[in-house]
Amino acid sequence: MNADILKERQNATFDVEKLTNILDGGPELTKRRREIESMVLSDPDFMEEDPNFLSRSERYDQAVRKSAQMILKIREYGIADPEEIYCYKSTALGHQPEPLGLHFVMFLPTLYTQCEPEQSRKWLPLAESLQVMGTYAQTEIGHGTHLRGLETTATYDPATQEFVLNSPTVSSIKWWPGGLGKTSNHAIVLAQLYTQGNCHGLHAFIVPIRDMNTHVPLPGIVVGDIGPKFGFDEIDNGFLKLENVRIPRENMLMKYAKVEPDGTYVKPPSAKLTYGTMVFIRSMIVGESARALAKACTIAIRYSAVRHQSEIRPGEPEPQIIDFQTQQYKLFPLLATAYAFTFVGQYMKNTYSRISGDINQGDFSELPELHALSAGLKAFTTWTANAAVEVCRMSCGGHGYSRSSGLPDLYVNFTPTCTYEGENTVMMLQTARYLVKSYRQAKAGQQLSGIVSYLNEADHRRVQPQPVSARPTVVDINDLASLGEVYKLRAAILVGMAAKSIQQELQHRKNQADAWNNSAIDLVKASDAHCHYVVVKLFTDKLGEIGDTAVHSVVSNLALLYALHGITVNSGDFLQAGLLSVPQVLQISVRIKELLSQLRPNAVALVDSFDIHNKKLNSVLGRYDGNVYENMFEWARRSPLNATEVHESFHKYLKPLRSKL
Amino acid sequence: MNADILKERQNATFDVEKLTNILDGGPELTKRRREIESMVLSDPDFMEEDPNFLSRSERYDQAVRKSAQMILKIREYGIADPEEIYCYKSTALGHQPEPLGLHFVMFLPTLYTQCEPEQSRKWLPLAESLQVMGTYAQTEIGHGTHLRGLETTATYDPATQEFVLNSPTVSSIKWWPGGLGKTSNHAIVLAQLYTQGNCHGLHAFIVPIRDMNTHVPLPGIVVGDIGPKFGFDEIDNGFLKLENVRIPRENMLMKYAKVEPDGTYVKPPSAKLTYGTMVFIRSMIVGESARALAKACTIAIRYSAVRHQSEIRPGEPEPQIIDFQTQQYKLFPLLATAYAFTFVGQYMKNTYSRISGDINQGDFSELPELHALSAGLKAFTTWTANAAVEVCRMSCGGHGYSRSSGLPDLYVNFTPTCTYEGENTVMMLQTARYLVKSYRQAKAGQQLSGIVSYLNEADHRRVQPQPVSARPTVVDINDLASLGEVYKLRAAILVGMAAKSIQQELQHRKNQADAWNNSAIDLVKASDAHCHYVVVKLFTDKLGEIGDTAVHSVVSNLALLYALHGITVNSGDFLQAGLLSVPQVLQISVRIKELLSQLRPNAVALVDSFDIHNKKLNSVLGRYDGNVYENMFEWARRSPLNATEVHESFHKYLKPLRSKL
Repeated sequence: MNADILKERQNATFDVEKLTNILDGGPELTKRRREIESMVLSDPDFMEEDPNFLSRSERYDQAVRKSAQMILKIREYGIADPEEIYCYKSTALGHQPEPLGLHFVMFLPTLYTQCEPEQSRKWLPLAESLQVMGTYAQTEIGHGTHLRGLETTATYDPATQEFVLNSPTVSSIKWWPGGLGKTSNHAIVLAQLYTQGNCHGLHAFIVPIRDMNTHVPLPGIVVGDIGPKFGFDEIDNGFLKLENVRIPRENMLMKYAKVEPDGTYVKPPSAKLTYGTMVFIRSMIVGESARALAKACTIAIRYSAVRHQSEIRPGEPEPQIIDFQTQQYKLFPLLATAYAFTFVGQYMKNTYSRISGDINQGDFSELPELHALSAGLKAFTTWTANAAVEVCRMSCGGHGYSRSSGLPDLYVNFTPTCTYEGENTVMMLQTARYLVKSYRQAKAGQQLSGIVSYLNEADHRRVQPQPVSARPTVVDINDLASLGEVYKLRAAILVGMAAKSIQQELQHRKNQADAWNNSAIDLVKASDAHCHYVVVKLFTDKLGEIGDTAVHSVVSNLALLYALHGITVNSGDFLQAGLLSVPQVLQISVRIKELLSQLRPNAVALVDSFDIHNKKLNSVLGRYDGNVYENMFEWARRSPLNATEVHESFHKYLKPLRSKL
Repeated sequence: MNADILKERQNATFDVEKLTNILDGGPELTKRRREIESMVLSDPDFMEEDPNFLSRSERYDQAVRKSAQMILKIREYGIADPEEIYCYKSTALGHQPEPLGLHFVMFLPTLYTQCEPEQSRKWLPLAESLQVMGTYAQTEIGHGTHLRGLETTATYDPATQEFVLNSPTVSSIKWWPGGLGKTSNHAIVLAQLYTQGNCHGLHAFIVPIRDMNTHVPLPGIVVGDIGPKFGFDEIDNGFLKLENVRIPRENMLMKYAKVEPDGTYVKPPSAKLTYGTMVFIRSMIVGESARALAKACTIAIRYSAVRHQSEIRPGEPEPQIIDFQTQQYKLFPLLATAYAFTFVGQYMKNTYSRISGDINQGDFSELPELHALSAGLKAFTTWTANAAVEVCRMSCGGHGYSRSSGLPDLYVNFTPTCTYEGENTVMMLQTARYLVKSYRQAKAGQQLSGIVSYLNEADHRRVQPQPVSARPTVVDINDLASLGEVYKLRAAILVGMAAKSIQQELQHRKNQADAWNNSAIDLVKASDAHCHYVVVKLFTDKLGEIGDTAVHSVVSNLALLYALHGITVNSGDFLQAGLLSVPQVLQISVRIKELLSQLRPNAVALVDSFDIHNKKLNSVLGRYDGNVYENMFEWARRSPLNATEVHESFHKYLKPLRSKL
């Protein structure tokens, strides 16, 4: 063990294991997680080459092998709980995604929820035994967020009782679905359903795309990989062009809507039923943000404790870079954010499972709030974590840029969360729609419940920004409850301002749609403030559950840093609304510096508490033992470019060049 | 040509060519640039495979070939002006770096400036004919910014009149130099010089590392590639471990310091002489920031004009995404920033060439200011552009994530500018050192000149933040000169606050070094505000040079947007200092929305004005003709994963898996 990092651990003021237990949800869960992790880590079948040394095709190949291994082993070990499956897979995968991911996350669940009984009997055994390997083909090259814009057609032909699927334009080619390019032999295709001369909108169809035996694409199917991306090298995101592809009528998923043999269309009973999956996935992404940021902080903070550089006091040895105030200011607010998002992720998971119970009972009453919350928090946490991972990378100096740091891979595989499952700006605007609607209801005298109930208090005085002097400030900058109130008021004010902007636009004879668009900046800002408030609140709430004094003390400091740092970054809002005075903002800057010093001795212990195994980090900088340089050197020597002492390009180009000069 | 983008061009209110001329520095320079570009573009020797489809080794191979081609052709065409060489190379390279880059940018210039005449006679012909291909090996695996910390030793042995070079520890292994791993056969190695039992600090030595004929590493040399990185796949950044490597005494670069045959050390006359190169490179990086951001904006804005998505008005066709206010708010301030940085880059280049004339005359008087300015602006512009490129990428939705967009490559090859040639936080603190020193001089009654002269006006009132009411606000938010004053005052106040923080720390019995470190957050903030002021000022100054009314009008709007957007992002500072009132900040938000609408019709024309050829963009999204989807489909079909219809992993893993389930 590196001496610096050992000393850091000795100096910690709290018991790391206790905090790990809180993060896992209890000591038993920590134990079980480690058991599952060790199944992977001790398994020679999961030994593999660092993907960074492989070509794209080799990465895909290795990932398919791993997917197959995981499926076998998970069944062999009888791991059935979704959380445990997630744990097993994420240990095996590290930062990497898996080619068969969509088969399990989208294809199978869609079959479970949208097949009628006869369809289930046919397709489920095939899909569960991987005779049928499927993906979910919705997005098209020219169409994403706006589902009504999708162009793929499925036209019913009653003569043969078949649907004829077509990609009528270049822009209608299915594009992006994971596992579509090479892996899948079936796809659930979303297409505009035409029957008896009418279009009935988007419906889902099971389309065979490759021969189940030979895996060769079927007639009328133009399928392939969409080419290299920023990351996701393991995944064959694909394209699919349909040229008069005929499928039996029974391949339309018919649990809800139906087409009868003669072509008669039968409407589904409710549109809300597919709503739940989106909410679930977005809620889960909040947890992903926390995990990505926890990894990045682990790498950057451990490395900052090992790395010595520059000087603070002339003549003394180079200090650990974690002792520079600028380095603490970069990393500790992000560490606090990683904790905040972890607790928010726990909340979202629990809330989802509670509400989905209600939904199964037919009670949709809490769904709109959860939908709004999951959309906004998905955007808020992914944007924050996305930028934060890059700050962590750059805080490691040049070595962060090496793929041996693990940070480039982490970034490129995390950053799509800002775009997929609902583009972030669109998500923020969805949340804003809910907020403005709630605000108007409150103004109209309705009593709001749930997390937006703070809008009940909104009144004319509050939505009108005022100079400092006009508002009495009773904020205690050391009290999280008091800070939560301030965040809440900021959110209420910004929601009010956005609503007012729409109102003003309408008065300028804009229609509702243009008024909305001309207020979009304010609406996004309002959503952002709402989410920020929710995170501060949930972080504060969590503190109440922490019994251990030493742990409570350090996590409280993190929560305070999170709240105060958010205020300095957005100090304009708080000053503008008169929620804080100028002296208070200055005090907050001073207090933040104190918190950085207070957190400094526990920084390494706080990332150790995440308990992320070296194998999951895949980072020479973030190694638990801190032995960075010797391992970086070892890693570099394995680089494929070092396979030969002299690269062929010397003989091909450089030697001939000399003779011409 | 895509109909949407054609319409955009028809609706522009100014003559694109005129603005292009301003950006190039005159119509003749535009003409000459295009001549040089067409030399590359019409040259079949520069036809190549998209690097995104190649393995790392193939990318390196292709890049070495291109490097060799460029050297030959540039000599053949007799292109000698450094600007023209830069233009030729950047056209051939696109976003990619070149393996022989350091030979020309560091190795040769170091020989030119640090060889004594006899050394020049020996080494220059060898290096100019590429018999000697060199790099510059300074950074070590454990040491970067802090040069005194470097551990490599060069010990003089008078018995043989040789230096013995060693890497005494793992942390002393040379790490990162471009072209070191595979390409170079020599390196200028920076090492601690020991002679007659004393260490005389860092000196530069020419060390042969590979046989000039066979290219095989020489005895005692452990050299190789440091492994894959985030980007820079074309470059063999290398490691070098020296094990008792002996070189003749004459291989020490002896223009200034010397070691005599008996081992007597002769000190150099001045330490300032190597100062200039750093300043030059940092000044050039400001221009790189502008170019990277101009590319990213070109891609994102053209694509936003072509892409239709979602709806603003129900029932109407999907609008161009550039019509969403949120999209405008993401992109237009970045477009304004690209213009700002372009003009700042021009200023830095001109200033450097003016001052370097003085330096050659022995006049160093302006160097400290330029040094401080280049350090701060290097950090300010690279950080801004770095984050901005990612905003541009994400503003393109999923397709930005495809390597066909060009944006991933652009980002990964630009982001190192935040770290190399002076890590950005260190740069900000260097600038802060100059600012605090100037501030103290002003307080001590000295009259400052140059760009920091605004600190002359600093007085007690101004450095004390005050509530709004206490300060008369006479700011005209539509007047750039007035806004420049506000930025200037903000900088003065923040420099004052940082100086005061140091003072307070000293009063708490901290030593000077700790006081500095405990004020580092404030110091970085002060530097940032200083740089921001400089950018606003230089952008405003540039407007005075634009004669054409239509061009002047649109560029003025950009400048105004740049200044106002910077205020809203940092509104806390302006409110806190009482430089703006709350109503003014609200007015600014409204004015920004107006500016977005005003700029909207010219957005495409404003990126067209950068006149960046498709080949340089290497982006299907940013194509001049706007034909995005068909070209993206074509590109994808060339993906190596599509070389076979069925990937071997199906037969290796998936088929066998089924039989086990």
